[in-house]
Amino acid sequence: MNVQERYDAFLALTKELHALELVDGLLSWDQQTKMPPRGAALRADQMAVLSGIHHVTLTKGAMPDHLKALQDDDTSSLGDDAAVNLREVRRQFDRASRVPTDLVKEIARVQALSMEAWTEAKEASDFNRFAPFLEKTLGLKLQVADAIGYTGSRYNALHDEFEPGSRAEDVAVIFADLRKKLVPLVQAIAESRRAGTQKLMDGHFPVDRQEALGRDLLTSIGFDWEAGRIDVSAHPFCSGNLHDVRLTTRYDAKDLTKSLFGLLHEGGHGLYEQGFDPDHAGTPRAQAVSLGIHESQSLTWENIVGRSRPFWEHAYPVLTRHFPDLAGEYDLDQWHRQVNLVERSMIRVEADEVTYCLHVILRFELEMDLIEGRLTVRDLPEAWNAKMVDFLDLTPKNDAEGVLQDIHWAHAIFGYFPTYALGYLYAAQFWNTARKELPHWEETFRKGDFSPLREWQREKIHLMGQTYPSHELVRRVTGESLNPQYFLDYLRDKYTEIYDL
Amino acid sequence: MNVQERYDAFLALTKELHALELVDGLLSWDQQTKMPPRGAALRADQMAVLSGIHHVTLTKGAMPDHLKALQDDDTSSLGDDAAVNLREVRRQFDRASRVPTDLVKEIARVQALSMEAWTEAKEASDFNRFAPFLEKTLGLKLQVADAIGYTGSRYNALHDEFEPGSRAEDVAVIFADLRKKLVPLVQAIAESRRAGTQKLMDGHFPVDRQEALGRDLLTSIGFDWEAGRIDVSAHPFCSGNLHDVRLTTRYDAKDLTKSLFGLLHEGGHGLYEQGFDPDHAGTPRAQAVSLGIHESQSLTWENIVGRSRPFWEHAYPVLTRHFPDLAGEYDLDQWHRQVNLVERSMIRVEADEVTYCLHVILRFELEMDLIEGRLTVRDLPEAWNAKMVDFLDLTPKNDAEGVLQDIHWAHAIFGYFPTYALGYLYAAQFWNTARKELPHWEETFRKGDFSPLREWQREKIHLMGQTYPSHELVRRVTGESLNPQYFLDYLRDKYTEIYDL
Repeated sequence: MNVQERYDAFLALTKELHALELVDGLLSWDQQTKMPPRGAALRADQMAVLSGIHHVTLTKGAMPDHLKALQDDDTSSLGDDAAVNLREVRRQFDRASRVPTDLVKEIARVQALSMEAWTEAKEASDFNRFAPFLEKTLGLKLQVADAIGYTGSRYNALHDEFEPGSRAEDVAVIFADLRKKLVPLVQAIAESRRAGTQKLMDGHFPVDRQEALGRDLLTSIGFDWEAGRIDVSAHPFCSGNLHDVRLTTRYDAKDLTKSLFGLLHEGGHGLYEQGFDPDHAGTPRAQAVSLGIHESQSLTWENIVGRSRPFWEHAYPVLTRHFPDLAGEYDLDQWHRQVNLVERSMIRVEADEVTYCLHVILRFELEMDLIEGRLTVRDLPEAWNAKMVDFLDLTPKNDAEGVLQDIHWAHAIFGYFPTYALGYLYAAQFWNTARKELPHWEETFRKGDFSPLREWQREKIHLMGQTYPSHELVRRVTGESLNPQYFLDYLRDKYTEIYDL
Repeated sequence: MNVQERYDAFLALTKELHALELVDGLLSWDQQTKMPPRGAALRADQMAVLSGIHHVTLTKGAMPDHLKALQDDDTSSLGDDAAVNLREVRRQFDRASRVPTDLVKEIARVQALSMEAWTEAKEASDFNRFAPFLEKTLGLKLQVADAIGYTGSRYNALHDEFEPGSRAEDVAVIFADLRKKLVPLVQAIAESRRAGTQKLMDGHFPVDRQEALGRDLLTSIGFDWEAGRIDVSAHPFCSGNLHDVRLTTRYDAKDLTKSLFGLLHEGGHGLYEQGFDPDHAGTPRAQAVSLGIHESQSLTWENIVGRSRPFWEHAYPVLTRHFPDLAGEYDLDQWHRQVNLVERSMIRVEADEVTYCLHVILRFELEMDLIEGRLTVRDLPEAWNAKMVDFLDLTPKNDAEGVLQDIHWAHAIFGYFPTYALGYLYAAQFWNTARKELPHWEETFRKGDFSPLREWQREKIHLMGQTYPSHELVRRVTGESLNPQYFLDYLRDKYTEIYDL
């Protein structure tokens, strides 16, 4: 085989791996949206079989040979896209081949028990029932980190799975700065004269009309319905890519903003997935670069666009066409304030864009302390509650609304949380550049034309796929390294006006 | 490895193969019910990857070793269920390993072109556009037959895929007899004084109420909703098994009987799939024995039960609760005649239970002539039309309503058609035994209690899985070999009364 033939064989296998990942994604989508209840055990078997086949295809047989040959050969003739694909598949190969199969199986076994224990512990609001499983999981994840290898913090080995190239040491500095500035902003909003003038919605909003509204707004931001769909699931998500992208949401009959912003959020993920370069379908060159960048796309459409005043100048008439009674309750200004309500609260997934990152930073600091051995699992609830007081001036009434609220640790996921906050930072920094490069953005938003921003994102971010790691992508798009100040400026400007600070 | 260890390893791999088949089934279900239009190309890639993995898992690696070792070893210690699983997986292995990969790929390639040509030819009602593709396909399928091997007719090699153990020579004798007796029965009905007194329905039946009616009737026959669901697709089907069985239907707003009997039909398939022995999940011991037996289960619920007078004594009040206006148009007697309307017609999938088998026998005779070289593809339309006159006294106006109506040949499927008619014969023969063993069937049907028949089917047929080939299953359940007289008696008794012959 010459270099080109070898690369073509590598690429065919890479696409096969991606096809298996899409199939796995569909099985999971189906499980959460359509599967009859008794199908769970068969589905688990199917996913285990696929996961085994994926692991073997990636780490045994022809793939290691291809990767070795293409390392030895002079591959410069293959071009830049090939370099991206080789780099990224090699990264996956290294991670997958370094962790012993027995350890992978043991984690899967413990994870199933841990999920069950967490569900029961959360129901009983009793962390002690979950603690032994978390201890076990943490021990296994430390073994994973050691097997994969790292420089600096052990945390890097785990975090790198979700945000390749990002380092805990840098994240820690950025988050410390962010926390220092967010806490007083939240305090200022809480003490403002407008604080508490809006309440959570408590009306009656039929689900079919919420869905119709969501569809209209997703259509206006440019979601392609020929290549996507919406369904209902307990936990909203976006899955699939390119020509088949599926969003889910849940409907609260009392509060339409939950599905509305949920759909804009998943729609932002969906635009990213629909926006990759179809010529590179099935390869890293046409896949998401990191979870943080993914989140930046969803947050742009949910918050930066979807909670902006110009967006609602277009969308308020759409809203009141679907829900005419709302026009009597909120005028445009009042509605804009309603959807930008800021309140310290206990639960991360219900937090607003000002307080959200504090929830994330808290989890990151605790994860670091656990992984670096400064904190034991037994002491975790106390540490959690102390930080909640420091960050948000709140004390959880019990473990359920405190340390047990998230599924991640029960699911053996560590190093993931920071990507949520990185998404906010990336989004604000991208937006700072976009609005300068799109000077007419306010006019086009008011007219309901979001194509200039969408096309800007597509060209600068979506079409790039995994060409550059996230930190490099940010530098290339915005001209500088990740800088949390853009997010802080965005919040300060917006909420100074809304809360008359 | 001792014999037991070897068998356990064989069984684990067998279950893996079945998991891949279920995943493939889900991808196909999704494609026909949920997938956004642009997802088709990605889905085709995914299914090709899975099919390749399935083929390799079945024919290479450990499976051939296990099969060989378990042939050489004394396997009697493993018991009867093991013998069934070994026999059936060996059968799959033989079929899959004998056909050269190049031939499989060539068929897939030609099939894609052939499907396209058939769609266009059917639209233009011009068989000549499709003929070259059918010639090519037929040539390839003859090569498949020769690769697999056969005794007697070449047709057996292809037919055996769908009805293991059934032989074209026997089918030909049975079908010739059936045809000879069906033609005069159809003639007698057409000439009866009641012929033409009922017309196809042409009302207005909202889809949501049709669905509610279908759900009520499926619930009463015992479909398990915790292990199944209904969706909409262009061509109705049933997929999945045991704990996750999915039915589809299509709704005609003018005629509720289409979805109603469509759902009872698919529901009958569904009861079979839900009825296997869960202790043998993932192995041939808990899978359908043949397409003909599968069809017998659907036809029992659609026709023998679903178009019977005692069924409607239970279901007529359910029907008129969902559609109160119907009560003014049909009393119970009139409704029972409405759902048993017999009319010679051009299209197989719209045919009633008296004329249906004639459509199938026509196709079987043409397939035999093509495969045994007595008929050329060019002469097929003429042969089709001549048989339509002989069998049903009708002449197709054009190729679209004649030789081009079915997708099977375009899809490279030969040897499948007979299973539709075998299903009618099996169903009637099973029913003849069941009603003797369940002397109170009429009373229980009238009360809407179908559990005695369902439990009878489960014990005698469903729980057997592939323990016995279809002809042996029929003999064990009914005490004699397949005998078309039971079907003819069933029709004569029923329609003598309905059409006052």
